[in-house]
Amino acid sequence: MSKILVLQSDFGIVDGAVSAMIGVALSVDDSLKIFDLSHSISPFNIHEASYRLLQSLQYWPEGSVFVSVVDPGVGSKRNSVVVRTRENHIVVTPNNGTLSHLRKFIGIEEVYEIDVAKHRRKGASNQSYTFDGRDLYAYIGARLTSGQLSLVDVGPKLNEDQIVSFELPLSRFENNMVKGSVEIYDERFGSLWTSILVEDFNQLNPEYGDHFKVKILHEEVTYLEEDVLYGRAFNDVHVHDLILYVNSLNRIALALNQDSLVKKYGIGLGLDWKISITPIR
Amino acid sequence: MSKILVLQSDFGIVDGAVSAMIGVALSVDDSLKIFDLSHSISPFNIHEASYRLLQSLQYWPEGSVFVSVVDPGVGSKRNSVVVRTRENHIVVTPNNGTLSHLRKFIGIEEVYEIDVAKHRRKGASNQSYTFDGRDLYAYIGARLTSGQLSLVDVGPKLNEDQIVSFELPLSRFENNMVKGSVEIYDERFGSLWTSILVEDFNQLNPEYGDHFKVKILHEEVTYLEEDVLYGRAFNDVHVHDLILYVNSLNRIALALNQDSLVKKYGIGLGLDWKISITPIR
Amino acid sequence: MSKILVLQSDFGIVDGAVSAMIGVALSVDDSLKIFDLSHSISPFNIHEASYRLLQSLQYWPEGSVFVSVVDPGVGSKRNSVVVRTRENHIVVTPNNGTLSHLRKFIGIEEVYEIDVAKHRRKGASNQSYTFDGRDLYAYIGARLTSGQLSLVDVGPKLNEDQIVSFELPLSRFENNMVKGSVEIYDERFGSLWTSILVEDFNQLNPEYGDHFKVKILHEEVTYLEEDVLYGRAFNDVHVHDLILYVNSLNRIALALNQDSLVKKYGIGLGLDWKISITPIR
Repeated sequence: MSKILVLQSDFGIVDGAVSAMIGVALSVDDSLKIFDLSHSISPFNIHEASYRLLQSLQYWPEGSVFVSVVDPGVGSKRNSVVVRTRENHIVVTPNNGTLSHLRKFIGIEEVYEIDVAKHRRKGASNQSYTFDGRDLYAYIGARLTSGQLSLVDVGPKLNEDQIVSFELPLSRFENNMVKGSVEIYDERFGSLWTSILVEDFNQLNPEYGDHFKVKILHEEVTYLEEDVLYGRAFNDVHVHDLILYVNSLNRIALALNQDSLVKKYGIGLGLDWKISITPIR
Repeated sequence: MSKILVLQSDFGIVDGAVSAMIGVALSVDDSLKIFDLSHSISPFNIHEASYRLLQSLQYWPEGSVFVSVVDPGVGSKRNSVVVRTRENHIVVTPNNGTLSHLRKFIGIEEVYEIDVAKHRRKGASNQSYTFDGRDLYAYIGARLTSGQLSLVDVGPKLNEDQIVSFELPLSRFENNMVKGSVEIYDERFGSLWTSILVEDFNQLNPEYGDHFKVKILHEEVTYLEEDVLYGRAFNDVHVHDLILYVNSLNRIALALNQDSLVKKYGIGLGLDWKISITPIR
Repeated sequence: MSKILVLQSDFGIVDGAVSAMIGVALSVDDSLKIFDLSHSISPFNIHEASYRLLQSLQYWPEGSVFVSVVDPGVGSKRNSVVVRTRENHIVVTPNNGTLSHLRKFIGIEEVYEIDVAKHRRKGASNQSYTFDGRDLYAYIGARLTSGQLSLVDVGPKLNEDQIVSFELPLSRFENNMVKGSVEIYDERFGSLWTSILVEDFNQLNPEYGDHFKVKILHEEVTYLEEDVLYGRAFNDVHVHDLILYVNSLNRIALALNQDSLVKKYGIGLGLDWKISITPIR
């Protein structure tokens, strides 16, 4: 057993919150190997948490345990789950939509509802209910990682459709065009990642160097409508020029070479930021 | 021995400074398990460093060694200490107030002054005096963690009252009211954490759903005066509404559900940001 | 073998990119000890990447493997290398200038060009070319760290002068004066680090407490011209006052005690931000 525990949250890394979670986990088993996915998920942004799990989970060894705590409902009646994915990663999380992408694109094999009364950290205050990341999720995640707790002892088994999921943007090929939504930013570089899957895009029989009409609409307003080159990577166009490419998650993306497309065009995210791509030949 | 070394500083994580500290520690013993508490303490903010130690230390395994370097006096005559807390955590730090909260709320069992001439890293430049984090604290912290150095060999034993401490804000129950100061932000979420301890607050016999008059004063100006509901967690009130709750350190806190109270009311931190809480019945 | 792998990039720590790299590395060998140098290198800033390697590499145990991915040319024809430094650290990086400082100030013993076709991660998409950090560098870095791959099997051996290098700023003593450039910021504290080496400065026979005329010029405009005290560390002058000192890399630096010199004087970085220092006696 590789004893790998990976933490994700919207807590940031400024204060001592993440450190308290790590301390709790090491107090369960000081031989755990603990890593961060990201603690910079935008506060309360469950969609982002869900996407980041999709972005990185698949690259980790089988059996790795992920604890994701983006939890606007902390202290309320929302339930919490532990799931095993089709690729044998374990995820511990509030059942609030955080598993939407994994459920759709990877698949969930088993779901257990956490019996909170049984699995809350011993010694946790009975008057403080705002830090389940420390008092519940890191604790049970560490016990699962160390082998002290088995999946089946987490709590009642649920059906896969009891996982709370968001509606995710589509990827569609039709009429010599692909359509989808602008799903997330590559924030550091200002690129746009769409929901369009490479297999749909490939139905347009694209070749590097081809040009496409790319259009981005939001509430019937056109934010971008450009002739864009399809390339392998940013350097296939001049600095500041637009490029259409396949991103590192095999989805279609749009960028300016060494510049921020997000800032230049003021494009937002979500189901209603629609993008269409049509070959120009 | 679990060989856990935890680093805290105000160095940020942008440049190579923290990495140099980790490298020095691993050069002492490459089997050390090294973690970060936070490197985003506001520059020179010793109060924050002190608070973050209180916030996380208690959750780590006994014997864990903490190195905290918020050190505006680097290169000056200020001395440096290694202490053992009542809960058997070791802290290495400049003796500049960083231990104020631990001393008051956890307790310090032993204090040793670092014999700098003896424990400075071999090979450290004798003309560079601005990075004791690397050349002294990480080095001696690693030697203590690895067992190469014993506490008693750190240097002269000091009395507990030779630990430099700041005046900390009070928590007081009197006349059917609790009083304290606004001590620190939960910055990521914009909440206020006060110095009022839950045991003092409990003398008001609060029940979830009760209302309290909360007043925040600074230099005789009232910054906030509101009727606030006492709840378990944020979701007990509507989004953007005020809530009074017990935070994850068993102190009374004030927040807006999914919104930033700090920004909305412009409230500062410190002894002279006074808060009072009175039941409304 | 200590199996230490250290990652540097300009990817930031907000999304799942760094986590994907760590996952790939642990999938190669889950006993690797993985650390971060920094992932906050300014986007595309190869000079900064090069400097940060100089700043921290030398403090790590011999045999540690560093993967540095600041790679504006990702997906283009630029080649990639693995080098061994004179101090026996291994660096994996695009051959784009990232090794400039190490080559000049530490020395490179061996250089191998990565045979990309052979060493690209199995399972990497053959239509996604924008994340060599995950699909090439972290993967080969992990294989080198684990001992699964030897240096000589990386690819063709190159000569040391085939390492792409930038022109680096000078450090020069002449006519009772030292000259150089403002090379980098200590961003967290707003100090300026120059290219002037302490051994050149020492030819002025400085003593703590001496005063120097410090002048910073950019395109014939004077940005700073002040009488500055030479001290050991910041506390040798009053808060907000200027101090000249030897920084933690044995170069001459300039700061305001507990204040940001960078903001106050609006000074930039690079070869053409020239600084001269002359004794006042």
